[in-house]
This record gives sequence, C-alpha cells and structure tokens, in this order.
Amino acid sequence: MCTAATYKTKDFYFGRTLDYEFSYGEEITITPRNYKFNLKNMGIMETHYAMIGMAHIAENYPLYYDAINEKGLGMAGLNFVGNADYKEVIDGKDNITQFEFIPYILGKCASVKEARVLLGKINITNIPFNEKMTLAQLHWIIADKNEAITVESIKDGIKIYDNPVGVLTNNPPFDKQMFNLNNYMNLSPKSPKNNFSDKLNLNMYSRGMGAIGLPGDLSSQSRFVRAAFVKTNSLSGETESESVSQFFHILGAVEQQKGCCEVTDGKFEYTIYTSCCNGDKGIYYYTTYENHQITGVDMNKENLNSDILISYPLIQGEQIKIRN
Amino acid sequence: MCTAATYKTKDFYFGRTLDYEFSYGEEITITPRNYKFNLKNMGIMETHYAMIGMAHIAENYPLYYDAINEKGLGMAGLNFVGNADYKEVIDGKDNITQFEFIPYILGKCASVKEARVLLGKINITNIPFNEKMTLAQLHWIIADKNEAITVESIKDGIKIYDNPVGVLTNNPPFDKQMFNLNNYMNLSPKSPKNNFSDKLNLNMYSRGMGAIGLPGDLSSQSRFVRAAFVKTNSLSGETESESVSQFFHILGAVEQQKGCCEVTDGKFEYTIYTSCCNGDKGIYYYTTYENHQITGVDMNKENLNSDILISYPLIQGEQIKIRN
Amino acid sequence: MCTAATYKTKDFYFGRTLDYEFSYGEEITITPRNYKFNLKNMGIMETHYAMIGMAHIAENYPLYYDAINEKGLGMAGLNFVGNADYKEVIDGKDNITQFEFIPYILGKCASVKEARVLLGKINITNIPFNEKMTLAQLHWIIADKNEAITVESIKDGIKIYDNPVGVLTNNPPFDKQMFNLNNYMNLSPKSPKNNFSDKLNLNMYSRGMGAIGLPGDLSSQSRFVRAAFVKTNSLSGETESESVSQFFHILGAVEQQKGCCEVTDGKFEYTIYTSCCNGDKGIYYYTTYENHQITGVDMNKENLNSDILISYPLIQGEQIKIRN
Amino acid sequence: MCTAATYKTKDFYFGRTLDYEFSYGEEITITPRNYKFNLKNMGIMETHYAMIGMAHIAENYPLYYDAINEKGLGMAGLNFVGNADYKEVIDGKDNITQFEFIPYILGKCASVKEARVLLGKINITNIPFNEKMTLAQLHWIIADKNEAITVESIKDGIKIYDNPVGVLTNNPPFDKQMFNLNNYMNLSPKSPKNNFSDKLNLNMYSRGMGAIGLPGDLSSQSRFVRAAFVKTNSLSGETESESVSQFFHILGAVEQQKGCCEVTDGKFEYTIYTSCCNGDKGIYYYTTYENHQITGVDMNKENLNSDILISYPLIQGEQIKIRN
Repeated sequence: MCTAATYKTKDFYFGRTLDYEFSYGEEITITPRNYKFNLKNMGIMETHYAMIGMAHIAENYPLYYDAINEKGLGMAGLNFVGNADYKEVIDGKDNITQFEFIPYILGKCASVKEARVLLGKINITNIPFNEKMTLAQLHWIIADKNEAITVESIKDGIKIYDNPVGVLTNNPPFDKQMFNLNNYMNLSPKSPKNNFSDKLNLNMYSRGMGAIGLPGDLSSQSRFVRAAFVKTNSLSGETESESVSQFFHILGAVEQQKGCCEVTDGKFEYTIYTSCCNGDKGIYYYTTYENHQITGVDMNKENLNSDILISYPLIQGEQIKIRN
Repeated sequence: MCTAATYKTKDFYFGRTLDYEFSYGEEITITPRNYKFNLKNMGIMETHYAMIGMAHIAENYPLYYDAINEKGLGMAGLNFVGNADYKEVIDGKDNITQFEFIPYILGKCASVKEARVLLGKINITNIPFNEKMTLAQLHWIIADKNEAITVESIKDGIKIYDNPVGVLTNNPPFDKQMFNLNNYMNLSPKSPKNNFSDKLNLNMYSRGMGAIGLPGDLSSQSRFVRAAFVKTNSLSGETESESVSQFFHILGAVEQQKGCCEVTDGKFEYTIYTSCCNGDKGIYYYTTYENHQITGVDMNKENLNSDILISYPLIQGEQIKIRN
Repeated sequence: MCTAATYKTKDFYFGRTLDYEFSYGEEITITPRNYKFNLKNMGIMETHYAMIGMAHIAENYPLYYDAINEKGLGMAGLNFVGNADYKEVIDGKDNITQFEFIPYILGKCASVKEARVLLGKINITNIPFNEKMTLAQLHWIIADKNEAITVESIKDGIKIYDNPVGVLTNNPPFDKQMFNLNNYMNLSPKSPKNNFSDKLNLNMYSRGMGAIGLPGDLSSQSRFVRAAFVKTNSLSGETESESVSQFFHILGAVEQQKGCCEVTDGKFEYTIYTSCCNGDKGIYYYTTYENHQITGVDMNKENLNSDILISYPLIQGEQIKIRN
Repeated sequence: MCTAATYKTKDFYFGRTLDYEFSYGEEITITPRNYKFNLKNMGIMETHYAMIGMAHIAENYPLYYDAINEKGLGMAGLNFVGNADYKEVIDGKDNITQFEFIPYILGKCASVKEARVLLGKINITNIPFNEKMTLAQLHWIIADKNEAITVESIKDGIKIYDNPVGVLTNNPPFDKQMFNLNNYMNLSPKSPKNNFSDKLNLNMYSRGMGAIGLPGDLSSQSRFVRAAFVKTNSLSGETESESVSQFFHILGAVEQQKGCCEVTDGKFEYTIYTSCCNGDKGIYYYTTYENHQITGVDMNKENLNSDILISYPLIQGEQIKIRN
C-alpha cells in the first residue's frame, strides 16, 4: 500500500512511497501562503504557511497525499482501510474533514509540538470533497526534525501516538505495529554468534545472517518491520547527495515491484512514486516507478506569497544517460 | 555479497549487484575483437568476440566482474567463499585460470550451448594475476536469451547446473539454493485464502499477505529466495525503458542498504553498483549506490575491431534533475 | 508461561499447561457445595456449585489456578504480566479480588452466558490474600461446551472478548493475539501447491510442508498460534480415551521442555503440569513433567454436599509399566 | 514422517518417533543371540549380539524399524523417499539388502567405531523381503554413547556422515539438514537483547522470545531444526526416571498430532509410537499415540541365549490412573 519514513542527517528528510494499482494523476504542487483554503466547516483559511507536496488537483484544490511546509513540518496520509473512521460534525470541536487535514495542519503549525495542540481540538469529519469522490480511509504521520507522531481517527475517537521509529505503513493500527517490532529484537546488522548450541559447530556462511527472520513480503506489517530495521540502522554521509540518496535506499527496501502483489485478477499494486522532502531546504525530490533518476522541485525558487497553486507534472519515463 | 539475475521481454537482459565494503576501482570496459588476451596456459587469444562489462583494469588487462559479448552471452562471477576450489594445471585439459574465465568463455562462445561444450574440457586453475593479487573465490552464472547455467569449481571438481530461475547469489552451493526454494512453494503474489481453519474468521488486513514468509534479510540464501520470487513473478512492458526499469526494480529487491550489514566493526557492505546489460543491443546500463539515475554505454557505438581497451569511469554522485 | 485450551468431541474438555521455573505446591482440589468462601468485600458465599481443579491451598482456602464446576463451566487464570491491572474497591460494583475470581464465577454460574451477566457488574480488586502473598498478574479464559471468552482487567477497565479459537496464552492482550493469527491464514495441514512460480519445478520433498511458517518457539505469541493451529485442525475419535488422549496431544504441542527457556542464569521454565477436565463428567485429568501417565480425579465420587475441601497430591515420578 | 534422537545422562538413550498414517502391526521384539538370520547374499548369521527393538514380524523374521543391541549400539531406519537408492549385488562387497541392514550391524558391532569398519565393505542391495513387500526407502542413524553417524545409500553410493547433533528426520539428505542449522545460529534459550536498534525501546513481553524463528511445522526439515534445538539445550537429572522422562519430552517437541498433517484426502499422518532405549540397561521404553504412559520391556529379563524371537504387543489405549 504505502510506506512513509523520516530521516535525519544535517537536514531533516521526510518522504513516502505511494503503492497502488493505478494513479489518480498527481503532481508536485506548491501552495503559496495566500492561496485561500475554503474549509467545509471552519471558514476560509486566508493565509498560512506555504507547503510543497504531491497532490491531485481537483477544482483548483490541492488534495495532498504528502507535503512539507516552509517550517519543515511534514505530513503524509496512508491507507488505513477498515480501521479509519471519520465522524459527523461535533459542535465545539475544530471540524476538519479528511481531505483538509494535511493543509490545515501544515498551514497552521511550525512543529509537531504545535500540531499536538491543534490535534487536541480537532474532529476529523466525513464530508467528501464532492459527491463523486468518496473519502479515502487514511491515517497520518506528522513529523519534524525533533519528533514524529501518528494520528488515527478510529471508532473510539482520535488516537495520537508518539512514533519513535519515524515509520508508517498501513494496517494494523499503530500500537499493534509498534508492539510487533518486539518480536524482532534479536535481529541485528551484525554477524550472528552461535547461540543455538555450544555442542554444535555452526557457521556464518554468508554476511548479513544477523537479520535472518526479517520479513521480506509486501504486507503492511512486514514493510513496517523492514523499514524500521533499515531506517534505524541506516548510515550515510551528511551531504545533500548522500542523504537524499540514502533516503531513497531506505524506501527502496519496501518498494513494491510490478508483479509481486496481485490485487485482483491481473491487476497489480506497485510503487507509483517515492518522495523525499528536505524539510530544511523546502525541496521535494521524487522518483517514479519508471524513472529511477531523482527529480526535485524547490519551493523557495517560487513566489511563496502568491495565491495561485504552482504544479509540476511528474517525469515518467526512464531518463537514461548514454555516455557514448 | 552479490546477486545476479536474467530477464527476458522482447530483448534479453542480464545484470548483477556488486555488494562489498569497498570498491577496487572498476570501470565500464569494452574489449574489442582484436585486443590480445595473453592466457597463462593457453597461449594468446588473438581475436575473439567483443565484450562489454564491469572490470578493474590492471596492467592493461580487463579483470571482468561481469560482462556480455556481442552475441548476447552474459557471464558474471559472484563470491563463493569457502566453497570455491581452483586446481593445479592438468595436462590434457584446457587450463584457464580464474581471472581468465569470463573473457575466455565470452571470447569464444556465442551461446550457453557453446559454452557447455568448452566447459567440458576446462580446468579452472589457481594461478593469480600477479603476486600481489590473491584470487577471489567465485562461482559463475552464464546466460543467454534461451537458458542459464551455474558453474562451480569445488573440491569435487567442476559442477555445471542448469539454472532455471536465472538467479545467482553466493553460498551455499547452487544445488542447496535451488532445494531451499521448495520451502517457499506456498508463497504467492496473490491474496491468501484462509487455509488455517474454517472454524476461524481470519482476515486479509493488507494487500501482499500471500507472500508472508518471504525472507527479507541480506544473507545470500535469503537474497536468492527473494530475487527468485520477484524475478519469476515480475511483469513489465516490452519497451527498452520499461524492461530496463523493471530489471533495476528486480535487483532493487535485494539491494544492500548502507548500515544493514556490518562486516567488521564499523565497516558495512552495501550495493556498490547494479548493472543491467541488454544482450541483444550490447548496451551496459548501471546505477551506483549514490547515483540512482541509470547510465548506459553502448558497445556498438565503439570500434569493435580495435585492439585497445575502451573504458568509461562510473558516474558516482546523484544526478538530480531540479525542475525549477 | 502457560497455555489453556478447550476441546469438544462428545463431551467438553478444558485444560491448560502451567509453565514456570518452580512449583508453589499445588494439589487437585475439590471444593464441595457448602465450603464457605469468605469474600473480602462481598460477604460469605455459603453455598455454590461444587468445583474441581488445581489449587494451592493456603489457610484452608483453595487458590485455584484452573477449575471446572459441576455444571461444566471451566475457568483458568494465566500470567498477564505488565498488562494486568487490578483496581481499588468501587462502590456499587461487585468487588471481587483477583484470587476470588475463579471460585466466585464457578460458584455462581452454570454457563458462559451466566458468567457474562455477572462480569457486567464485577470490579476486580487488588486485595492480596495476605500480606506475604503478592497478587499474580493474570487474565482468564472462561468456557463451556458452547463458547469461550477471555477476561482481561487492564488500565482501561475490564475487557471481555469472545474467544472463538478457545485458546489462551499470555501477553500480548487477547485482541493482539487474535489479530496476529491473520498472518498465518496461508498455513494448512494439507500439502502445499506450487504458488511461488509456474516457471519453476518446486517439489514437496516432505509431508507437512503446508504449515511451513508456523512458529516453533516458546514465546506466548508463538504458543498461541501453534495451539490455535493444532486445536482447530485436531481430529480424534469421540470416546473418553481418544478425546482425553488427543487433548494432551494438543497441549503437548506447546509444552515447554526443560532447558529451552532460560529465565535467569541457570533457571528454566518448563511445563510443571498439564490438565484436562471433562466438563460433562467432572473428571480432572493431569500429567506432570516427570509423569507421562495420565492421572484422574472424579469429583462425582466425592461427597459434594460437604463443607470440607478434598485434595489429592500430584503423582510426580514416571509411572513406568515394565512388561517383563 | 519420523524423528530419531540420542540423549546422554548417566546412561545412553536412543529412540525415535514413527509417524505414518497407519500401522503395519509392530511389536517390541527381542532377537536372542542364537536366532538364525538367513541373509539373502551373505549366508546364515548363526550367532550375533542380542537386540531389542520395534519390529514387524513376518514369516518369523524381525523387520526392525529401530533397535539397540546388548552392547548399547542403537540403529533406526527413517523414511528417505526419493533419495534412497539401493543397488544390485556387487561381487567383492558385503551385499546386505535393506531389511537386513539393522540386524546385520547390530548383530556384529559393539560400537559405532566397529560399524564404520563394516560399512566400508557394505553394498546395500535392493532385494525385497518377498514378492509382496516393496522395500521402504530409508536412511539410518547408528549411535552409541560416544558418537552418532548417518548412513545414506543414494545414487552416488553410500554416504557416511558424522552426526554431531544426534538427530535424524527425513528428506533432504543429511548434509543439507546440517547446513540448514546454520540459519538458526542466532536462536537461543536465553532471553533476547535488543539488537534491532538502540534507538528503539523494544521489550521482552514474554519469556522464551530468544528462540523466535524456530520452525513449528511438521515438515522433516523443520522437525530436524526443532529436535536439534530441544535436544542440544535439554537439561535433566541423571536418574532413570528423569532421563527417560526428558527423552520423551525431547521427542514430544516433534510429535505429529492427529489432524495436522493431511497426506491424502481425509488421511492423516501422526506419531504412531515413540521409543526410548536405555542402551546401557537394555530396556526399550515406548508410548503409543493413545497411551501416554511409558511402557518398558527389559531384554535382560529374557533368555538371550535362545534362538526364538520374543515379542510383546503394544499397549494401545490410555492407561489412566483414577485416584478415587
């Protein structure tokens, strides 16, 4: 389905894969500070932090999948089918409907700390964008350079979890995902020792045997474990090239290859795009399934005081550099 | 350590990852037809098929890691430490030392079928390139568009295995690797059914659950299973862009991320480069760990009747395309 | 730690393993109908259903680990360390302290249905038996021939879960245990088919390969999965001999062998006893770690109208029958 | 299919499970020293060591499944379908047909050391017992208090492997089984530490988590790993009661429960019997699927100088001891 991750070297990086069997048509979309968000229940948000992210633009409205604002706060929505539950409008609450949640938080908060305050008042409502579009069932990761949280609106209400691993996938709910990591505490990037029996002469016949038991399939729980392992053990230099490169390697570990996840007869889910935002620099990097080259859009090169959406279509085919 | 794979759409593709903790300094190297190979025991190979591949060039000699010749025959050597065993010179045999094996086979054979004939007479000897360089312990995959084989020189002698899966990693020997696949026959890209018990109401809470049990670690046996699963279930279009893209996704499934495989204290193995040769067109594509963009070198754009090695150094840093 | 299970042929069977590093000294204990339970907050329970089970008797009080009453309702307490949370006395609730919970429910309820009604009013309190004995942290399975439930008193309050699998082990909480079963839905007692790839000729080299992936360790989550698999696929005849035999085989699948679970240096947890009650006949069968022979005590052979506890010490050494 | 194991405390113990979907009718059978073995190609073995074991007696001939001789040498044959290969008679070899192999070795050898000498001359032939009985495809474990070996007659000839773990199951060949243990070297009876990441606070929520990854299914490779783990970590006292008890617990870890291994529609393999011989005392202990009590037959209570087979039928139903 999808995987999101955070990463920190000198700068803060935030990104995700979008895994699905088809694309809705998404573009890199910059929302400048004075673009007016006409909220369903909360009036008009006239000014706000500028943000850049991946969005499907409908009726000149940026339906963000993931984005980062000019303060370095990132947020992404990931499928949470069967568990997500959005509510009717409740008086006295900040009633934000599902598709407004990303722009509302990124528009108003400079940090996770500030987001936590707003989240205390929010009720995520079930009002669709229009009659034709049903609401996706999502949960969210919100992260800055200091911390990450997971937000889930379920039957019981809104749950806000500290997310110490800085990873989100899909089902099951986040507390189950975190609990499940305990089952893998024995795994390590280091070489294994023979703990099985001192009566047997067992051999390390290959490098990498310390993590035997790490799941390799594409289910959301297995991707969570794998992304957690790769991300928390990840090592890279601190330059932009090294950091961005490493980030795409982290999410590469949970990439969905075409053919390996059949959704219905002959339809396959795959990683449509992978993103990596530099939260400090405001640059949104991405690759698409059929373009391994990293492409970037820099929000700070645009007029962020505008009131007009700026969008860049995705580059889709392989950009191969032939040397001769 | 390393993973090699074959892939077939309209054209035939062959490539590998090279996983190690440092690079010896390798370049894309074209050996034209009249470059003279001075063989240790078999005289001079004056003319031969042209070949392109990754090589460390020492004393004007191409020490190939993997290559493909102008007839579309590919060959790669992968670590096989502890099992590889090279021999003394035997009279009456074609005595080819380890580092000559790739150029000898690719120089003389247009197909796996032809290679099988030569292999019947070969003795792989233990003569090093020079006094300073010890011989790497390797086994090999040789493949064309019709079939693949694995060649292992072990204590018992040379073993030649049909390789129906078109994948090679490292230890254990190939027959054990193939046998081990049987343990995963239950796994599938399709959604699982409840076979556990008809008395329980179990749910498919995520897509991709049909392959739960697929190993996700970096050991050579786990990479073999994972590469076999991804490769044999792989689906892509037939264009060059789609095929090459998919090939890099297949090997992406077994990529080694920096930090996840500690070799000795503070030293980590990672995927130094990934290659993909189009055997029909003679193009060698590659990515490096820190350059996600695919780069290519086309042997047919060079003078293949020359007697001088042609080489292209690897592009190492991320080639990011900034859109604004 | 422990595993409990239910089983149904012609009669209803209920039992458990007790896994620990030492024994507190337990005996088969029959509490007749007129034994007076002096409850900490609910006065004296003068008469009640008779019950038979395993108990540590302290100050003439049966501290039951597991028991079944004359109506065929069974109940067992299993370790739930770190999650169990017992409360202060609450006015208006039926305040039953932890160690009274089994006799209170079995004393008053003829079925799970009746137990559900009582559970609606119960507050499980934290009053210890005496100053020297701290309260064990437990959760419970309550079962009759028609259904089973799990009861957990955690920070959030009392949770009552339907238990469709009829198995209980220890941590994590029951909803996580049930959810985790979904990850094993692919497993089967039947022979596997090759779903991995139709391009490979994979073989069933052994019987029993359909359940590859079933966990074999002694952690509480793995024992839950294994007991669930064995119990729900179990097949046996309907006679008492066949049913009781099969029940001990089911719990045998999660037995803890001495040496395989080190608790602290040189101290090992093992299966101290395994029990199987016939709920219809009122017979309590058991084996101990060092006595494979099944021993039974029949409550209906005792005077159940008495007010005096009846107890039978456990037979501990192997009762080997030498034929010659 | 089957599992054999050795165990050593003060005495030497040797035994096995027999797993199949039906019984051929086997009995505890003592062959005294002067019973004449009429060998197919090697004349008559007039006198030999006495032996006790499980055999199907046909035409007054003991077709042993497993046995131990008066010198404490044990031997068992286990299914090896698809790999076993028996040969035509070869001049100059000791031609022993498959069903003669156990009595021949146990009749003539006092130790594994002596057996190794005989094995150097043996050719295992394919001559059936009679026209109606096809030869089972088996391999063997031979063990005494000092060492164990595995004997396999395959296409390539006879293979004799040191068996340091003292366990045998079925396919694949023994070298693959031993190699596969390397994949589990990380597993331990001890509590796990958090090796996954020092950035995450992972918890040991249950005892026994150090062996997460141990396979729990009934395939022959998984039973090999599990039996190896339980046996090599096993701890028990040294008395006969403790030692025999522990041995049955070791093999209990690989017992096949009825219903968990479907062979063909509605037919299930299960553990028909489990045996444990005391090699020093000459006592053969066993349990059957439906009799948990351990029964024993002591060869030294019989006239071992006789020439007549002595047999004891198996006790089949549960021998439950009712206390009241």
